[in-house]
Amino acid sequence: MPFTPPVAEQRFVLDHVVRLADLAATERFAAASEDVVDAVLEGVGQFAAGEWAPLARIGDTVGAKWSPDGVHMPDGYRQAYHAYVEGGWGTIGAPEDWGGQGLPFALQTAVLDTLGTANMGFALCPTLTVGAIEALQHHGSPEQQAAYLPRLATGEWTGTMNLTEPQAGSDVGALRATATPLGDGKWSIRGTKIFISFGDHDMAPNIVHLVLARTPDAPAGTRGISLFLVPKYRLTDAGEPGIFNDVRVVSIEHKMGLHASPTCVLSFGDHGDCVGELIGPEHGGIRAMFTMMNNARLNVGLQGVQVAEGATQGAIAYALDRVQSARAGAASRDSVAIAEHPDVRRMLIRMKAQTQAARALVYYAAGQVDRAALGDAAARDRLELVTPLAKAHGTDLGNEVASLGIQVHGGMGYVEETGAAQYFRDARITPIYEGTNGIQAADLVGRKLGLSGGTAFASLIADLRAEAQHPALIRLIGACEAVGTHLASASHDDRLAGSYPFLTMLSVATCGWLMERQSRAAAGEDDFAQMKRTTTRFYLDQIVPEALGLEAAAMAPADVLYQVPAAVLAA
Amino acid sequence: MPFTPPVAEQRFVLDHVVRLADLAATERFAAASEDVVDAVLEGVGQFAAGEWAPLARIGDTVGAKWSPDGVHMPDGYRQAYHAYVEGGWGTIGAPEDWGGQGLPFALQTAVLDTLGTANMGFALCPTLTVGAIEALQHHGSPEQQAAYLPRLATGEWTGTMNLTEPQAGSDVGALRATATPLGDGKWSIRGTKIFISFGDHDMAPNIVHLVLARTPDAPAGTRGISLFLVPKYRLTDAGEPGIFNDVRVVSIEHKMGLHASPTCVLSFGDHGDCVGELIGPEHGGIRAMFTMMNNARLNVGLQGVQVAEGATQGAIAYALDRVQSARAGAASRDSVAIAEHPDVRRMLIRMKAQTQAARALVYYAAGQVDRAALGDAAARDRLELVTPLAKAHGTDLGNEVASLGIQVHGGMGYVEETGAAQYFRDARITPIYEGTNGIQAADLVGRKLGLSGGTAFASLIADLRAEAQHPALIRLIGACEAVGTHLASASHDDRLAGSYPFLTMLSVATCGWLMERQSRAAAGEDDFAQMKRTTTRFYLDQIVPEALGLEAAAMAPADVLYQVPAAVLAA
Repeated sequence: MPFTPPVAEQRFVLDHVVRLADLAATERFAAASEDVVDAVLEGVGQFAAGEWAPLARIGDTVGAKWSPDGVHMPDGYRQAYHAYVEGGWGTIGAPEDWGGQGLPFALQTAVLDTLGTANMGFALCPTLTVGAIEALQHHGSPEQQAAYLPRLATGEWTGTMNLTEPQAGSDVGALRATATPLGDGKWSIRGTKIFISFGDHDMAPNIVHLVLARTPDAPAGTRGISLFLVPKYRLTDAGEPGIFNDVRVVSIEHKMGLHASPTCVLSFGDHGDCVGELIGPEHGGIRAMFTMMNNARLNVGLQGVQVAEGATQGAIAYALDRVQSARAGAASRDSVAIAEHPDVRRMLIRMKAQTQAARALVYYAAGQVDRAALGDAAARDRLELVTPLAKAHGTDLGNEVASLGIQVHGGMGYVEETGAAQYFRDARITPIYEGTNGIQAADLVGRKLGLSGGTAFASLIADLRAEAQHPALIRLIGACEAVGTHLASASHDDRLAGSYPFLTMLSVATCGWLMERQSRAAAGEDDFAQMKRTTTRFYLDQIVPEALGLEAAAMAPADVLYQVPAAVLAA
Repeated sequence: MPFTPPVAEQRFVLDHVVRLADLAATERFAAASEDVVDAVLEGVGQFAAGEWAPLARIGDTVGAKWSPDGVHMPDGYRQAYHAYVEGGWGTIGAPEDWGGQGLPFALQTAVLDTLGTANMGFALCPTLTVGAIEALQHHGSPEQQAAYLPRLATGEWTGTMNLTEPQAGSDVGALRATATPLGDGKWSIRGTKIFISFGDHDMAPNIVHLVLARTPDAPAGTRGISLFLVPKYRLTDAGEPGIFNDVRVVSIEHKMGLHASPTCVLSFGDHGDCVGELIGPEHGGIRAMFTMMNNARLNVGLQGVQVAEGATQGAIAYALDRVQSARAGAASRDSVAIAEHPDVRRMLIRMKAQTQAARALVYYAAGQVDRAALGDAAARDRLELVTPLAKAHGTDLGNEVASLGIQVHGGMGYVEETGAAQYFRDARITPIYEGTNGIQAADLVGRKLGLSGGTAFASLIADLRAEAQHPALIRLIGACEAVGTHLASASHDDRLAGSYPFLTMLSVATCGWLMERQSRAAAGEDDFAQMKRTTTRFYLDQIVPEALGLEAAAMAPADVLYQVPAAVLAA
């Protein structure tokens, strides 16, 4: 599994998609100077190549292991995690008041991109910590912030999100974990949570669980949910991890991939001795959780970029090395590297183009996080609109590219030793967690199309149209507008029936817009510029028209879905 | 992993797609009466459900194991294989002269469909035996046929195909295994072969390896290749397995899936004592190999159907059982089975429709095998034309459907216990082996478009056009004709650059034609008929237009692929 930090590409996207210079011109992000950005990208690239990438394979083959005293990470992970903390890589986007560097979220995105390309399962741990920081930053009390944020900002302690229960998956409102008041602002927490990534591990002296639970007599559904801070070890008066807080890891899942990330079943308060603190107001849990979940969705979209980047690097290296057959129609009958054969070359360029598209989309959304933080209301709307696109389409592309990566390797891709299969297995969770991609599509058509009276959507369409030049892209933008307008006023069923194809169309239109912009900016004759123009041309000529082929499905009414009862499908 | 033999669907496809009644009306296939066909479908369904499906999971979790004395199958496989032989399931399509039943290949296809849906990895073993039977039937000497066919026809002995070597994958002509004459029609075989499915196992007293090798002074490339019959144990004068023939299994691959199928590295003649017999003429190996490979390609396309059927059954069962959230916009706020939510229902119907499409395509091709065997030259052309479609598109659909199966399961789909992940992992080899799907696309545009002066292609288009009624399907047929006509006279590079999107377009057009035909035949109001009309409507309204979106890519010239040197892609 070769790994080269994609620094030139990241820098280019930060410049032309995120337009980081605009951010650096503000007082808040003045620290994000060109030099600092270069140093961060180069630095994390070297760190990830040296410390994290070499552990990707053992993370898969050995993986995290459960034992009665907790989860043990594979050899090397503990040290590599400490090196991450020591290097200050966790502090990039963390608030300056609490020991962070307060750099743009978009730059933090690039840092996580590099770490996750080197080792996707491992990088999930800091990704979750980032989410915990955001929740505390926005909803925690000053005391909670003072007690926890400095240790989370460095990564010395790690964070988790605890939503899911066996009966409450996509339907978070069905959760049953309870919180009973103990007085003094303390609550007794009881319940079982499943699918908790890094719910336990041996890399940090404390783990900060953010847990959704119900208080006594809370209303049913999501309105009755509150968010609690539940440390693995309660803090002593000196603020250090003290006694065990009765949070037990019951087991970890046997998953298809992402083996470096322990997916835990956590039991809170088995012995009635699990103490939590309320974060934000009682019954305000879902709002607080969304604070952390929205950016977490972008970070899952980013995992699509990570796996796509890794798979693409692996496939290109293999295809340049593997010699097989002469090129059809060539004068020479000598065998050539398979990268020279048209259909293999097509797969490689498609992988490269889709990876760039995914990165552009996710980084663009990340840039809106920063603009929104500066008080730009339009950016807040834009962020909300593109978040489901970045999550769902980013992860869909990660899966497509990982599959192409196997195909380029041929039979060797199916053998685990090449690593191509690991990308493919790791990627498959990303369209599922942090809200399935179907949930993202429902969010897009259910809430985001009508956001700010529909102006959020109209303004994106207007921005795309103002810049787009390629005829197919212009057609796709028009189709998106027509479909979006139709779905916005369609019945619930029709809207949801067309939601997923529409999400893909709008994502491709947005990616096409950002790719075309990059291609215009890549005016030089250097390798990078020529490669950018090639991938963009491929994207606009070939991938954009595919998305036009989804219009019929996006407009199709739901009645075909209900023509026969579901049970008849089993006939 | 639930398993219900899809008997009604198979019967319907045999009736309306294969038009088995036409075959049964001939002397050769007179035995394929309605009663016999029903008995075979029902019988193999019961057998597969009782004996093979329960072993699918252990085949994955334990898998075939290598040891110095050979490969051991997981518990239960030996007995279940013997039950298959005893039940006569191997004899369905085998020649009557050698103990087979001589029933249509299309019916054998349905039998393998059922067996492979129950346990795909296991079913690969009899699938390979079928290939060995075909090679011997068409190219073996009367003595070879008498010695081997009766035992292969029952499945008492199993067969393998030995093409690949480390340096010779898609480029078969690069192989280096040697055959040196020993006199008396015997040859000494030496060389190493990789990726040999069921190259060794403990379920049969002998294994018949068909091995491609070079004779002394043979011309370079594929023209110098000969095919040899190399038993694991040489036959005694009484025709029984005797002394070990120096074929050693060096190791088996650690694969992402298909663990029940041992993928062997075989070493022939390590001790200079491996004896083979020539099959067919010297240097005629590639032709003989194609005899077995063409039908093997259909059988790999069929694996796409198998995995799609299994994944679909699993997803429907889960979605009917799993309750989560109220339906959007519904009066009731009660939670419903997830199959009731529009986007989940869309996935289920898509899975069902794509499975039916794949089955129709592969069974249709199988029916052409039977028609060609009856001497129908047009059917021979049609078979050659649709073979790459059945292999490539059948396996692409298997992968798509298996991925949707995981998505329907949500987080549970990523956990191995549900079995959804196994389908996904098992499926991923099918677009690779028996000629990668890229090779299939190259075959389509390179050889099949021009077959019989282009009449093979023109006649398929004419048949589609004569029956098609749905406007999108009519448009797609027109697009296929235009693209095919363009590619037939395009440069090598342009032709190959557009080959894969064109293959998908033509496959979808062919599937749409066969789906529409079935829908017309499903005129009743019973559940099955209504379900058929629903899946067909979904296919024509939504999936056919997607294929139209591929026209731009199919027509795109190759120059974009070569705009930058391959090495620059790593920039």
